[in-house]
Amino acid sequence: MKCRKCGGAAVLELRRHNAAFCTPDFLEFFQNQVREAIRKYRMFTRDERVLVAVSGGKDSLALWDVLIDEGYHTTGLYLDLGIFDYSVESKAKCEAFAARRGVELVVSSVAAEVGAPVPVIKDVTRRPPCSGCGLSKRYLMNRVALDLGVPVVATGHNLDDEAATLLGSVLHWQTDALPRQSPALPSTHPRLVRRVKPLYRLSERETAAYAFLKKIDYIVEECPFAKGATSIAHKETLNRLEAESPGAKHNFLLGFLERGRPAFERVEDVVLNECTRCGQVTTGTVCAFCKLSDRVKRSASV
Amino acid sequence: MKCRKCGGAAVLELRRHNAAFCTPDFLEFFQNQVREAIRKYRMFTRDERVLVAVSGGKDSLALWDVLIDEGYHTTGLYLDLGIFDYSVESKAKCEAFAARRGVELVVSSVAAEVGAPVPVIKDVTRRPPCSGCGLSKRYLMNRVALDLGVPVVATGHNLDDEAATLLGSVLHWQTDALPRQSPALPSTHPRLVRRVKPLYRLSERETAAYAFLKKIDYIVEECPFAKGATSIAHKETLNRLEAESPGAKHNFLLGFLERGRPAFERVEDVVLNECTRCGQVTTGTVCAFCKLSDRVKRSASV
Repeated sequence: MKCRKCGGAAVLELRRHNAAFCTPDFLEFFQNQVREAIRKYRMFTRDERVLVAVSGGKDSLALWDVLIDEGYHTTGLYLDLGIFDYSVESKAKCEAFAARRGVELVVSSVAAEVGAPVPVIKDVTRRPPCSGCGLSKRYLMNRVALDLGVPVVATGHNLDDEAATLLGSVLHWQTDALPRQSPALPSTHPRLVRRVKPLYRLSERETAAYAFLKKIDYIVEECPFAKGATSIAHKETLNRLEAESPGAKHNFLLGFLERGRPAFERVEDVVLNECTRCGQVTTGTVCAFCKLSDRVKRSASV
Repeated sequence: MKCRKCGGAAVLELRRHNAAFCTPDFLEFFQNQVREAIRKYRMFTRDERVLVAVSGGKDSLALWDVLIDEGYHTTGLYLDLGIFDYSVESKAKCEAFAARRGVELVVSSVAAEVGAPVPVIKDVTRRPPCSGCGLSKRYLMNRVALDLGVPVVATGHNLDDEAATLLGSVLHWQTDALPRQSPALPSTHPRLVRRVKPLYRLSERETAAYAFLKKIDYIVEECPFAKGATSIAHKETLNRLEAESPGAKHNFLLGFLERGRPAFERVEDVVLNECTRCGQVTTGTVCAFCKLSDRVKRSASV
């Protein structure tokens, strides 16, 4: 197997691109995909500070790594979810990465902000753990960015993540979720920062290869609550389609962004208010995070 | 397992309806689903003649059977594709069914109309066999209906067929195909009859059970050219989703019809002309059927 660019020995075959690459040329391919994502969606400029949400996993650390190499002004954000050993280890990976690269890492704790860690939130709400966890993460990412004066949050969502979410939305034709699925969500309110996903063009296998080749030390274990999540089943479905027809995931997601999503964009935007309790945006009066936090604290005081 | 309606012994469990039925109550359930389809999409009335396209398989014969029982004025149409023994046997099944029920069956031959049977068309065009076959079937169904003065053609497409087609269109975001996917396509030109799919709410398993319980003698073999068709792969994908989450297919298709399809309906319709050769509708000057037929005849004369 030869590298498509230099003809040297390839380390990785990318069937969907009908290509194979040696290490330096794969790393360049990876960087180019990130550059293309940033350029196409005007995600951020070199003058802006970017808050990179890192979980300690391969995707978010690979993202941070690329952005540092590309000369962007980044700050890492680790949200401590309080999920037993998984959180202890993943935090350590983020801290070690930040120290090694000499970059700033901010840590925010869900237990401190909501009143309890994710495992307790799960029991109090009696909903799937990903529900309260996702809500808390989205809220805290935005709030920390506002507090730091950073205009944009970047997350490590990759092609597999985005295609799986899309499949879930399409199987139920969730016409509310479809227009919100994008590699770049603009700021539609002064108290809402931009959210971008610079890895949306790169598969999970590619981010894993990047992290491996760049010797990034990341947490390999999945979140213990992820087992049985529908997103994992959707990823398996897409992996089978991809095996039969290389490029299936890429065509599904990028075809949606080009031709599907415009059909679902709403003419009138949702009206955003400021939560009367915390000042963050909400479509109601009190935001979902404050309601969750209330419920957790009430339950703890019983 | 007890029948949901009468409490007697059930013969069939329908997980997606969280129900089980005895034979008479299943047959009634089946008929009700067909009635609901006809009513919801105003497919045809008791005053109209309906051309039922029959292949000899379970779906189309079950459809014809229900429509006869419901008192509709039907004529069967068998299109002889000339696919070896498969066509010989499937034609015999249709003729036996028509004789048993005392209904009229019209036979039209692709070899006579196009100039060669499907296996030869496949070789001449060097395209997948389903391509020329589907084109010829759609054309001939419409032409026979026009010749007979019948305003509507009904086909046996079931929930699995429709969901698989939809999955194929969505995976590639074929925005041309998406608005055309409907249980009822109106006549948009005087030389184009309506096309309807009264079984779109019923799964393949349900049409098989109906045919079995009504003792309909149908051809069990699939078309020999169907092997490896992507529609079969898409059905397997959907079957896995259905096994994990009963109702997945139904929600996918019916959710699309309710909330997805309206987003893709084009504001301006395609302009339809009459083919300068045969007079049937085309978006160009000479229709695709006449072009195919020319090509087949030219190749035969070489």
